[in-house]
Amino acid sequence: MNATDLLPNGLRLDEARAEARRTYELDRAHVFHSWSAQAEISPMTITASAGSYVWDGDGNRLLDFSSQLVNTNIGHQHPKVVAAIAAQAAKLCTIAPQHANDARSEAARLITSHTPDGLDKVFFTNAGADANEHAVRMARLHTGRYKVLTRYRSYHGGTDTAINMTGDPRRWPNDHANSGVVHFFGPFLYRSRFHAETEQQECERALAHLDEVVRMEGPSTIAAIVLESVPGTAGIMVPPPGYLAGVREICDRHGIVFIADEVMAGFGRTGRWFAFEHGDAVPDLITFAKGVNSGYVPLGGVVIDAEIAATFDHRPYPGGLTYSGHPLATAAAVATIRAMEDEHVVEHAATIGAEVIGPGLHDLAQRHRCIGEIRGAGVFWALELVADRDSREPLAPYGSSSPAMNETIAACKAGGLLPFANFNRIHVVPPCTVTADEVREGLAILDRALDVADGHLG
Amino acid sequence: MNATDLLPNGLRLDEARAEARRTYELDRAHVFHSWSAQAEISPMTITASAGSYVWDGDGNRLLDFSSQLVNTNIGHQHPKVVAAIAAQAAKLCTIAPQHANDARSEAARLITSHTPDGLDKVFFTNAGADANEHAVRMARLHTGRYKVLTRYRSYHGGTDTAINMTGDPRRWPNDHANSGVVHFFGPFLYRSRFHAETEQQECERALAHLDEVVRMEGPSTIAAIVLESVPGTAGIMVPPPGYLAGVREICDRHGIVFIADEVMAGFGRTGRWFAFEHGDAVPDLITFAKGVNSGYVPLGGVVIDAEIAATFDHRPYPGGLTYSGHPLATAAAVATIRAMEDEHVVEHAATIGAEVIGPGLHDLAQRHRCIGEIRGAGVFWALELVADRDSREPLAPYGSSSPAMNETIAACKAGGLLPFANFNRIHVVPPCTVTADEVREGLAILDRALDVADGHLG
Repeated sequence: MNATDLLPNGLRLDEARAEARRTYELDRAHVFHSWSAQAEISPMTITASAGSYVWDGDGNRLLDFSSQLVNTNIGHQHPKVVAAIAAQAAKLCTIAPQHANDARSEAARLITSHTPDGLDKVFFTNAGADANEHAVRMARLHTGRYKVLTRYRSYHGGTDTAINMTGDPRRWPNDHANSGVVHFFGPFLYRSRFHAETEQQECERALAHLDEVVRMEGPSTIAAIVLESVPGTAGIMVPPPGYLAGVREICDRHGIVFIADEVMAGFGRTGRWFAFEHGDAVPDLITFAKGVNSGYVPLGGVVIDAEIAATFDHRPYPGGLTYSGHPLATAAAVATIRAMEDEHVVEHAATIGAEVIGPGLHDLAQRHRCIGEIRGAGVFWALELVADRDSREPLAPYGSSSPAMNETIAACKAGGLLPFANFNRIHVVPPCTVTADEVREGLAILDRALDVADGHLG
Repeated sequence: MNATDLLPNGLRLDEARAEARRTYELDRAHVFHSWSAQAEISPMTITASAGSYVWDGDGNRLLDFSSQLVNTNIGHQHPKVVAAIAAQAAKLCTIAPQHANDARSEAARLITSHTPDGLDKVFFTNAGADANEHAVRMARLHTGRYKVLTRYRSYHGGTDTAINMTGDPRRWPNDHANSGVVHFFGPFLYRSRFHAETEQQECERALAHLDEVVRMEGPSTIAAIVLESVPGTAGIMVPPPGYLAGVREICDRHGIVFIADEVMAGFGRTGRWFAFEHGDAVPDLITFAKGVNSGYVPLGGVVIDAEIAATFDHRPYPGGLTYSGHPLATAAAVATIRAMEDEHVVEHAATIGAEVIGPGLHDLAQRHRCIGEIRGAGVFWALELVADRDSREPLAPYGSSSPAMNETIAACKAGGLLPFANFNRIHVVPPCTVTADEVREGLAILDRALDVADGHLG
């Protein structure tokens, strides 16, 4: 690019570079970042984005295979959503949650038009963490029980209850053993805790394990079982057929609320509106965020089934927030969902996953010894990288990183690809709108980067 | 208004009415509301807003003395903020928190330009509840202690830790006695728990009480004392001179982190940028939301002093969120703060409070026996309504309502005024930009409504 070339948002490249220098200096002086040792980070500035691409502070274009934090399902700067935000801003930016507003009403209608019958009410929050906090609260008050079961290898959010629900090392510094959360093992055949050799065995044994945990903990003490329908950051472990139905059956047997966390997996990510639709089980509460409006405006929420909603018909629900059902956020959701319907974005995610991403990744696995397993669906894929295919030793320890992983990620970026990485995994999580050509471009960059990983193997 | 008249956002009145009917029906079918018994509410639809006014679904104009949930400090639909949201939406809606962005950097710079030296870093959240959750987490990790002290008659947010910090009845259904929060009594001369007769006595005795609670709880167990600089929803009890300095001194003596919750009181509400500026004490952490961008886009955060920030220089801060420092939200903050500076909004709030609202309310107190006390500053005032001035019996019980209160609030609305009410109190909390004429219009409506309350007195 020349200095006077324009970025997609109209910024001149030389302007963007000057802005990025100032942005970086002010960031280092004044911005405290999530999940970081503040003196040890060097954030990349992003000055523009469009579709499947972002531009860094030097004007380099990067193919966004991260969807940021797996939230821009509709791609960056979708013109209909951008226009809807501007229109709602001009019409009405904010009202208090006790009033009613057309954007909020319509968003609730649209969201529940994609959920099973009986799941017809939406409590809007700001994001996924508070959605999970409120879902747990609803379950606790509905059942009169306190304990919550969640799985190891999971992520449910950053606030106190949500991070304690989480099954990854970010929980540890926040865990004071008083959150009422008990963790169990979910199905994960590649690293089976159940000595299983088939998906069916893994499913049966994981359900038997959960059943035993429930019996040992005391069914009458358990308010809810909370599961990401497909665990996301923890590794995109698509559950084996029958697993969620088995969880549903355990919940039904004991009057336990089944909460499906669809914050990352929902709104098209797996090629369905909600990831639980891959099976037959219907949850009692669905939490969502991210894809509902692609994160263009902060928004999350809980879809509530009729029985739990009725608990709060004449008893006040003891929870709320100033921005519940925020007009700007819900208007962005309305525009996003309509555009996803009109442009068949969910169907596209399913097709591109089945026909391009999946085959492409399995092709990479043929050529790179560092790939231990490929798993996923839609635009939600994980590469499990290993130091040794036989022992399945991860290329970075659980909860940590390694030179091999760091260099592989750096090679992705140097090649023009923004990946999503966690411990020993690289996730391929582009927007649902990613084209076949973009996928091929990204996989070619990934191909070269994985040579770096292979080079670390014995 | 005629059916073809235009609302300020360009909606025709007949269109607005039709939209409002649909909005209401969909709301009742699909929206689950904060803090409510869902079958017992009948939400008012809001179709438009401008400056100090909102319009309901019938086209009635209401003077907004609530600022919604005390958040629209800059008034409704401020053109500069609306334009900034549209501009940022066109430029870049969202990036992940690990990257850097110009809107986020500039918002952090502007916010910290209004905080004392040494409070120079901002961790952005989505709202006030998660700001308080993260502030407590920072204090716990910085001190290595768990316990948190907060006052009765307070509000700190709706997520689990935040609602457990809260000192009002909304905590009770969420309190499982495992949150690590201990409540003490703060200064409140009108209902003194310390048998005080002067502000100075109340201050001294409230500090002695806090000091004793700290000694009895064990100073080495206490991570933080969290106080709204002026408690908001709980009653706008402006602390007596010296109280916050006394709290600061107790914190210093024991290595306790002093967290000032400025979610409602900050950004001009009391006639200062932050309410703690009325005294000499400087907190270690400041939490904010609402007024930072008037709630036009969900945003909150924690301003962190250098010593606590340094704790996380080489040790990862174990907290975060997808929308931390969201470009759209922080761009709205940049525009809001600049407009507040350029238009001297904070100074205006101080003046209108001292010269118009305060005197006007004291004048009402001369004429209405139901007014037990008037207290406040800036655009942050409470009328403490009583059934009997001598006994100070509240016009509604703590944590509840009463026919007298309900009828008084209904009379406000019927007169064209949207009040903020809590238990036995009506709060006068218009935007910081409210004009003298609008204040007089609102006080005249309030005057007539208080006749209804007077009519309930013996």
